[in-house]
Amino acid sequence: MSADLRGVDSHGIARLSGYIRLWQAGRVNAKPDLKIIHETPSTAVVDGDAGLGLVVAPFAMKVAIEKARLAGTGWVSVQNSNHFGIAGIHAMMALEEDMIGIAMTNASPLVAPTFSRERLLGTNPIAVAIPAGKHPAFVADMATTTAANGKLEILQRKNLPAPEGWIQDKDGNISTNQHEVKNGGALLPLGGTREQGSHKGYALGSIVDIFSAVLSGANYGPWVPPFVSFLPVSENLPGKGIGHFFGAMRIDAFRPATDFKQHMDQWIERFSNAESISTAEKVLIPGDPERAMEQERLVNGIPLIDAVVKDIHELAAQFQVQL
Amino acid sequence: MSADLRGVDSHGIARLSGYIRLWQAGRVNAKPDLKIIHETPSTAVVDGDAGLGLVVAPFAMKVAIEKARLAGTGWVSVQNSNHFGIAGIHAMMALEEDMIGIAMTNASPLVAPTFSRERLLGTNPIAVAIPAGKHPAFVADMATTTAANGKLEILQRKNLPAPEGWIQDKDGNISTNQHEVKNGGALLPLGGTREQGSHKGYALGSIVDIFSAVLSGANYGPWVPPFVSFLPVSENLPGKGIGHFFGAMRIDAFRPATDFKQHMDQWIERFSNAESISTAEKVLIPGDPERAMEQERLVNGIPLIDAVVKDIHELAAQFQVQL
Repeated sequence: MSADLRGVDSHGIARLSGYIRLWQAGRVNAKPDLKIIHETPSTAVVDGDAGLGLVVAPFAMKVAIEKARLAGTGWVSVQNSNHFGIAGIHAMMALEEDMIGIAMTNASPLVAPTFSRERLLGTNPIAVAIPAGKHPAFVADMATTTAANGKLEILQRKNLPAPEGWIQDKDGNISTNQHEVKNGGALLPLGGTREQGSHKGYALGSIVDIFSAVLSGANYGPWVPPFVSFLPVSENLPGKGIGHFFGAMRIDAFRPATDFKQHMDQWIERFSNAESISTAEKVLIPGDPERAMEQERLVNGIPLIDAVVKDIHELAAQFQVQL
Repeated sequence: MSADLRGVDSHGIARLSGYIRLWQAGRVNAKPDLKIIHETPSTAVVDGDAGLGLVVAPFAMKVAIEKARLAGTGWVSVQNSNHFGIAGIHAMMALEEDMIGIAMTNASPLVAPTFSRERLLGTNPIAVAIPAGKHPAFVADMATTTAANGKLEILQRKNLPAPEGWIQDKDGNISTNQHEVKNGGALLPLGGTREQGSHKGYALGSIVDIFSAVLSGANYGPWVPPFVSFLPVSENLPGKGIGHFFGAMRIDAFRPATDFKQHMDQWIERFSNAESISTAEKVLIPGDPERAMEQERLVNGIPLIDAVVKDIHELAAQFQVQL
């Protein structure tokens, strides 16, 4: 619901049928026994017991927040989980505690590192939520690729080409064919090409992968299980399920929260009021577009595409739920 | 020396004359009294007492490492500092302790956020160093811009145009004029254009700015004091000096270091051996190019450009040092 309200249509109710198929395939445990399997004053590792990430992530984020209350910060790496929806919503759990929240996850391999023909990383998003005073919070939530897969899906539905720098074909040539990823192509790391800094996007995606999975004992790189239930999971996996990483930092573990928020307000005002290139586009604070979308959709409702409505009706019939 | 060995020529001995001019202008304190001014089990704020960042950063990183020894992780935000050289070398201090190291800093404003005509952020680098087993460590060290300013300086010296996506002119048009930043233009956030994800680079640079300065009480955004001594420092600054942020995470605060390193080795081997697009370029692990450069320069020495050699001779004469 939060994803749909915030305009991340690819991660909301549209995922429900996929989640159910994973449960039917025995890959998602609907009643996971969530456990801390290792901890120190400021860290923990959580075993998600093959639960859905939407359930595992809030549990792990709460552990991070509790650690931060006592130790100043809390950092939780998670193994044996599944897709957790949008990263931003988990990071934002820290805001009401006057903490900075951080959330990241690895994902099925769709992204080719710089110079690689192979897909070795997921779109591996990073979200950082930072409280302000009178202004809404700063909330960055981004795939570490030039464009998230959901953006590409929109172009596929509209039959529009992809901008250069988003994808490459199976031989590693830059492509504008929006269907290329299905033909053995790959999404590109943030930057797109080496000259435009794709090695930085590749490094960021790798850091997310390592913090989420090598640190927790989940699967990493090309071994991350595919999101779709019809693709087989590799044998000889190095870890369990997919991995996430969460952080919470208490503001007053650094300085009084009122001082911090006053300066965040000044920061936000200065950037919002920057002289913009054209009158059409003002300088935005990360989180502004999603917040505007949420306000609009709370009033006007959430538009769903036909394929999603059809999915929901089929699920309702299958589980004898009245719509 | 580490910067020069690793091939980051813009941040090594080439900076010495600039550091000395800042000291002569009274902006760098050569004998700073470094102090922890606030702390919790996993956090601290350090006052750099206007010291050179090259001195302040190792002190703060040691505090982070000591915190991590006891609490699992340590996070230190620094106010009242100056330029700290390359971020990577500070992050790498954690490696010999079997910890992950993180270092970032804000810097003088040269970067225009997406849609902005004004320069509001520095090149704000992020470095993350992650230990491996038999393989060398993973060391990412990157400006959050498409290209670091040092890369642009090389094109200026060679009189070559800048690739599209690196800079914009004073009106916000994409430019390939390598001198544009001196004419009121700006470096661009990683991504380059909105369509290529520059809002993500802008968000990353902002996170570095906020963690380094709003969390510590240093100056942020357009108020960061200029690196060069001949430009005036603004009045009514919101904070003190420039800010840094450091982190150390003990590997065994999450899982046994031997298990982690074995999986890091597998990660590195899989990515290094990925099928590459052309036989000319194999897939690299972050840190590979700098390590290769270091090995080469340890054997063949560090080449210096004439302007730097001239600078060093002038400084030697000025301070009566025998070269």
